[in-house]
Amino acid sequence: MSDREIHKLIKIILSEDLLDHNVVSRLNALHPADIANLIESLPSEQRKKVWKSINLPLKGEVFLEVRGEVRDQLINSTEAHELVTAVSQLQIDELADLDKKLPRKVVTAVVNAMDKQQKSRYEAVKDYPDDTAGGLMDIDEIAIRSDITIYVALRYLKFLRQKYKTMPEHLDSVYVVDRENKYLGVVALKDLVSLPYHTLITSITNTKIKPIQVSMHEKKVAQIFEDRDLISAPVVDDNQRLIGRITVDDIIDVIRKEGEHMMMTPAGLSEKSDVFSPIIDSVKYRTLWLGINLINAFIAAITINLFTHSIEKVVSLAVLMPIIASMGGVVGNQTLTLVTRGIALDQITPENMKRLFIKEVSVGLINGFFWALAVSLIVVVWMQNLRLAAVCGIAMMLSLFMSTCAGTVIPVILSKLKIDPALAGSVLLVAVTDVLGFFIFLGIATLLILN
Amino acid sequence: MSDREIHKLIKIILSEDLLDHNVVSRLNALHPADIANLIESLPSEQRKKVWKSINLPLKGEVFLEVRGEVRDQLINSTEAHELVTAVSQLQIDELADLDKKLPRKVVTAVVNAMDKQQKSRYEAVKDYPDDTAGGLMDIDEIAIRSDITIYVALRYLKFLRQKYKTMPEHLDSVYVVDRENKYLGVVALKDLVSLPYHTLITSITNTKIKPIQVSMHEKKVAQIFEDRDLISAPVVDDNQRLIGRITVDDIIDVIRKEGEHMMMTPAGLSEKSDVFSPIIDSVKYRTLWLGINLINAFIAAITINLFTHSIEKVVSLAVLMPIIASMGGVVGNQTLTLVTRGIALDQITPENMKRLFIKEVSVGLINGFFWALAVSLIVVVWMQNLRLAAVCGIAMMLSLFMSTCAGTVIPVILSKLKIDPALAGSVLLVAVTDVLGFFIFLGIATLLILN
Repeated sequence: MSDREIHKLIKIILSEDLLDHNVVSRLNALHPADIANLIESLPSEQRKKVWKSINLPLKGEVFLEVRGEVRDQLINSTEAHELVTAVSQLQIDELADLDKKLPRKVVTAVVNAMDKQQKSRYEAVKDYPDDTAGGLMDIDEIAIRSDITIYVALRYLKFLRQKYKTMPEHLDSVYVVDRENKYLGVVALKDLVSLPYHTLITSITNTKIKPIQVSMHEKKVAQIFEDRDLISAPVVDDNQRLIGRITVDDIIDVIRKEGEHMMMTPAGLSEKSDVFSPIIDSVKYRTLWLGINLINAFIAAITINLFTHSIEKVVSLAVLMPIIASMGGVVGNQTLTLVTRGIALDQITPENMKRLFIKEVSVGLINGFFWALAVSLIVVVWMQNLRLAAVCGIAMMLSLFMSTCAGTVIPVILSKLKIDPALAGSVLLVAVTDVLGFFIFLGIATLLILN
Repeated sequence: MSDREIHKLIKIILSEDLLDHNVVSRLNALHPADIANLIESLPSEQRKKVWKSINLPLKGEVFLEVRGEVRDQLINSTEAHELVTAVSQLQIDELADLDKKLPRKVVTAVVNAMDKQQKSRYEAVKDYPDDTAGGLMDIDEIAIRSDITIYVALRYLKFLRQKYKTMPEHLDSVYVVDRENKYLGVVALKDLVSLPYHTLITSITNTKIKPIQVSMHEKKVAQIFEDRDLISAPVVDDNQRLIGRITVDDIIDVIRKEGEHMMMTPAGLSEKSDVFSPIIDSVKYRTLWLGINLINAFIAAITINLFTHSIEKVVSLAVLMPIIASMGGVVGNQTLTLVTRGIALDQITPENMKRLFIKEVSVGLINGFFWALAVSLIVVVWMQNLRLAAVCGIAMMLSLFMSTCAGTVIPVILSKLKIDPALAGSVLLVAVTDVLGFFIFLGIATLLILN
């Protein structure tokens, strides 16, 4: 469905109290991803209206597509017996992904209704942490032996198709294993369809594709997919036994989530945040962050308070002090952002850290010199006070230098302490650059002008 | 190659002036993506050393993997005749991606050496803008007719394989076209390998998969891939004729780039930024941003300068004023970030804009009330001045309210004006929240305390 049609539907839903039959059937004809987008684009009251009119089996699919915060709202507003129907249509690994978010009794009811084979498959995947290869993998991989021909392999695939009526989603390759189910390599479907029937599987097995270890972190898995341009990859346990496969569509979600995380957390928001979340929830989620920032701001105020005597004598100090702090903040934030991304991309190692520090500090010094000159000139023209201009220049230089150092060091230290630099970095940096900015400027002014 | 091995290599490269034979051969055995990561993790002098020791054909592959800023450095430090050898091994569509970044004479030399068929394929793709479906697509799609059986289709694929010796990368499906090469639908390879040989192609053609229009913007293409969990998709021209296909590995690059764009631009950096870029380049790239921020800061200073008379009388105003401005900045930034993401995800429409505004303003009012109370209490205890506390409270309330409005409205207006809100939003917001914060606080103080 095109964006324009979705926008039209949104308009209708926002303008009418009751959804008529026509709108309801248009809603239910949408792709689950479109329904998810539509729901995320609606204020809470309208969401409930739309949610009520979606068919139960479709609701299960929508849970997989919406953002965390919205999903929790939808799950909370659905009756337990409806949830059971909605999610019982999902695939085993999809259910495992939702597992921890659903009420316990719903999961129990769904699992109890499974047949023995499904139950054991479910037990096999549900305990892997969400953010590892195990949490991402499907368990519907197809394994063949290496000593057969393409013709025999095709016969085996036809047999599987007849037995299970379906093939795994996004199947682009099958895996070759030995007698003990140990992973040996990959055979691409494109080779199965295009090479002569008598070709031996062993001669077309790509043994260079390394399997993914089940405990590998999802970010690392995503990086491997990205660097190697993979569509799917085999997953093995600690004994190199094939236990599943990861497909690229799940990797896209990981990369999207990571991107939103890096964008949202420096503002004290989560990538799960919902643009139309209920007002009270929004207030609640933002309280901690604002509280921390209020403490920051008061520490800065206490710093200024040390110099009230100086400000009383030269009130222009109060006028100029935010300039120094603000430029320090901007410079520090640029360095912080660059280094935080470098850490996320695993480009910053203990070995190159020193060079990075020297580079950023040099940039800070050159920038400091340049902007010190600029600010001094402006102040001379504006305030006609050479001493004040000199104070501004020296303070700007020092503040930009120190802010650059802080922007480099803070994310590195946080990441060593296993604290997410994207989350804590910006708030710590502001504390440092504000306090330093005010202290350096007012301190130098007190030394040079007032004594 | 594992991260640990790469880190070891980085250590060796950083510690030694000349790379010995062993290191050089280890470098050349790496995957191009690993070489790209390694180069991005090195300071400029070491980059040159490593770059010199990489074999020419590998260099072409590395160009495709490194970030924009680093790629430009590498291209600049490679001789023209070497560039010709390096990129002449690339696939047609890969070369087309690099086209505008390479020196003209290099491109001409490579194109002149192509055979006629290659040349016409190259001409067909090079003119599509990089950020559209045409720029993303490969032209190696395989098309079959609908009135044949699987057996005949397999025979045709075997014929193609014998003729061209290879199959397209990431092939998971072939496309069905009519006599005029108009797109009809998709046949998955998994169906070709698992269904009986006598099955008719027409019975297994998925006609629900809509083709991508060649002029569609890459962000929209990425969203379709993400929402529909696609691995590949057919691309058609304005007459619905099949002209190529897009594979998900290129989509991952689009999503990664978009994520980095949303993270880097609010700090005035580009997603192409290089963490180890030469010092002078870094200074240069950051100058414009710092210049704009200096203007911002001086406008704030001019605002404060209107009230020097009040500050001289009550110096505590200078101590407290950054608190109001800083909290306004934080609240505004949260709203700005949320709305900017909403715009990027196409969740904000003219229809729901009003509701979003009401929601955010309500959040701003409640937050304003709460933090006004908090700041007043602290100021009473600290400064023992009821009037000053009242001023702080009222100013905080107003400032948080206005900042929330600014955070909602600024990105919407920018995006209507076709200006990237991620880039211009934060700098505009700071200007507004600083000026408003200082003006409101000092203005109210002047009204309530000094008159």
